[in-house]
Amino acid sequence: MSAPTNRRTAGGSPRLAGDAPHLDGARLLDVLGEISRIGAQPGAGITRTGLGAEEAQARAYLAKRYRRDGLVARTDQAGNLIVRRRGADPARPVLLLGSHVDTVVRGGRLDGTYGVVAACEVVRTLARLESAPAYEPVAVAFSNEEGARFPYPFFGSLGLTGRLDLARAATTTDRDGTALPDALRTAGGDLDTVGAAAWPDGAIAGYLELHIEQGPVLADRDIPIGVVEAITGRTIIDITVHGVQGHAGTTPMSLRRDALVVAAQVVLAVERLATGRDLCAVSTVGCLDGEPNVTNVIPGTVRLTAEIRDGRPERLRAAERALVAELSALGPATGTRIDHDLRRVTRPTRTDHRLRAAVVAAADDLGLPHLEMFSGAGHDAQIVARSAPVGMVFVPSRDGVSHAPQEHTDDDLLVAGADTLLNAALRLVADRW
Amino acid sequence: MSAPTNRRTAGGSPRLAGDAPHLDGARLLDVLGEISRIGAQPGAGITRTGLGAEEAQARAYLAKRYRRDGLVARTDQAGNLIVRRRGADPARPVLLLGSHVDTVVRGGRLDGTYGVVAACEVVRTLARLESAPAYEPVAVAFSNEEGARFPYPFFGSLGLTGRLDLARAATTTDRDGTALPDALRTAGGDLDTVGAAAWPDGAIAGYLELHIEQGPVLADRDIPIGVVEAITGRTIIDITVHGVQGHAGTTPMSLRRDALVVAAQVVLAVERLATGRDLCAVSTVGCLDGEPNVTNVIPGTVRLTAEIRDGRPERLRAAERALVAELSALGPATGTRIDHDLRRVTRPTRTDHRLRAAVVAAADDLGLPHLEMFSGAGHDAQIVARSAPVGMVFVPSRDGVSHAPQEHTDDDLLVAGADTLLNAALRLVADRW
Repeated sequence: MSAPTNRRTAGGSPRLAGDAPHLDGARLLDVLGEISRIGAQPGAGITRTGLGAEEAQARAYLAKRYRRDGLVARTDQAGNLIVRRRGADPARPVLLLGSHVDTVVRGGRLDGTYGVVAACEVVRTLARLESAPAYEPVAVAFSNEEGARFPYPFFGSLGLTGRLDLARAATTTDRDGTALPDALRTAGGDLDTVGAAAWPDGAIAGYLELHIEQGPVLADRDIPIGVVEAITGRTIIDITVHGVQGHAGTTPMSLRRDALVVAAQVVLAVERLATGRDLCAVSTVGCLDGEPNVTNVIPGTVRLTAEIRDGRPERLRAAERALVAELSALGPATGTRIDHDLRRVTRPTRTDHRLRAAVVAAADDLGLPHLEMFSGAGHDAQIVARSAPVGMVFVPSRDGVSHAPQEHTDDDLLVAGADTLLNAALRLVADRW
Repeated sequence: MSAPTNRRTAGGSPRLAGDAPHLDGARLLDVLGEISRIGAQPGAGITRTGLGAEEAQARAYLAKRYRRDGLVARTDQAGNLIVRRRGADPARPVLLLGSHVDTVVRGGRLDGTYGVVAACEVVRTLARLESAPAYEPVAVAFSNEEGARFPYPFFGSLGLTGRLDLARAATTTDRDGTALPDALRTAGGDLDTVGAAAWPDGAIAGYLELHIEQGPVLADRDIPIGVVEAITGRTIIDITVHGVQGHAGTTPMSLRRDALVVAAQVVLAVERLATGRDLCAVSTVGCLDGEPNVTNVIPGTVRLTAEIRDGRPERLRAAERALVAELSALGPATGTRIDHDLRRVTRPTRTDHRLRAAVVAAADDLGLPHLEMFSGAGHDAQIVARSAPVGMVFVPSRDGVSHAPQEHTDDDLLVAGADTLLNAALRLVADRW
């Protein structure tokens, strides 16, 4: 991360008269307040899981609201809501702005939804432009980003970029046994014709996503705008330590093969990857289960998951190798057998320098301090990045809390983030790049 | 532990003619085979939990079998089976020999039961003595030693020594809600009159218990007889590490308060108590539960149990103090809060030097190598020790396995252990000490 800066950066110049333009902050907050009622339960946050009735209701609300402003709103075959100007040249490449409106179970009101509402407001604001832009601004609400009910996250962005695995989609069910294709149909999509939701090559000139940080970095440093340098790649290593179960009273220490003692060493080795050894951005053991897990028995088997993330592929690989090497040495050294299964969940995704520059310039125009940073969480942007240049803008999350009812960002910061999105979009749609 | 020895030790001399006497090994194994059918299920070991129908059936089997040999067998108000010679002077102090016939769920055939059958065989053998002994040999099968169904372990030995907590007994239930007093009544006892099961002061001259080791020490060193120096005391420390839950991707390492990373340090600190620091005999973390225990969330809270055991009270206290001091330092050092709750489950129990000497002499007479050692597991002997001098004899457990269907000791070792009990009892009943 670089230090926060406030200097002006080269880039296109605003097309609206006067100082850096602002969107209608009160309207933004009003729409956000309205949509937050959908799926809300008192004291239990918002549950608006992907491909369900509440997500569809949120899309319908937005479609209705922005149609009143003269915009066109439609749901595609993958369940994505797309909002754009009426009558624009359909051949013009698009600057796509958006995020998602689905939530986790008992989630907050901002994760995803804030970015969608801001995108719609930016498209509405830019629709008043008199000159034809080089790129057409379009807002999108991707379906089922979280995968909280149907375990196929990023469903909408995969559909829009033509990367859905149809066999997987056809066989995905929720916990009650409802099939994803049925839910998609109810939500206004159609798996049989989902290929039509895929945009052709070159149709997306760039994708810019505004999101709450979901981490404590900006709040901790009191910086309003994060300029995302990369979305970290994520590797999960499932580890099993096979020791020997025994009576905790009668087995001398010298004859023990205590799986939990070895697992504790693994936990500390995983933590050192990102601290003492500085091989990756973060490393975590979130999950640990011993057997038989009773007070007076030496644990025979312990299963744990190591998760490591970094924004640079070569660092992520180096951290993977270092951990695997440690596990390979630790087994023989402790008389246990340590199995591991490495899954590369997502690759690190760099944002595009041109979109970053536009965000930096926009923040500078608005006099907003900003920080280049990683996104530790996954976002639709990492899916779209396989097809088009992407950028991301973050605003602070109070206490870094997300995926919880307590998720919060102050209104002025929400408006500042949306203004940054507006000004960055203004620069990006102005001229071909 | 001392090295195995095979030298002769001073003590009383055998009263039967010839070399060291032997009991009828074939009969011992036959009774053990018969009783092992009670509560057995194919492939699932033996389930004969305390104060249940199977335990009562095992007592009834033994009573019937030894009545055929002319012995008196009765069940007392605490559910204990007591087997003794007919017509002996009721005022004569008793050398009590025994153990228990209840098991854990899916237990083995030897834990407890072996010691009871051997005790009955010894009493049967000694009943043929022509001269009146100084102490009357009596066999006992204590009820509900394990506490596997009714969580009031050592019920029978507490009853026989007058140490039952009647309020606790009256309110103890099994998982199905059956009350302990009802089960006790069905089993032939009676909580209302359980005081009558308590023996008067001085009635027990000594108690000697033969048991499988339930640990790997004797088997590992190929020594047939263990002479128990002390039953280790046991302290359980429930520990809770309060960290801060967070997103594993978005929370920088520098801002984390990962409860599992701290818990891992606790696990290693507990292990070091008995290894590197040599403060106690054994130390174990058997149980560890993190929350929310999912891959991509930094654990916010971890609960774990430290269990430490030693045969010497001062060492157990020192180990307790050392761990508490480490916890007190670790919390502030890691920015977490660590709560602990220390429970002294049992105090270390020394065996009596006279009973130990008799066991050593008996093993020497039989030419059996022996080892002075701790008992890491709890036994009825530690309850009786509060009322009378106690001793314990161990035989090897294959692979140290107990409380499992795989529990096994070779027949020749079972007979050797019973012969040692016989010869030790012979020495102990001969003269006043």
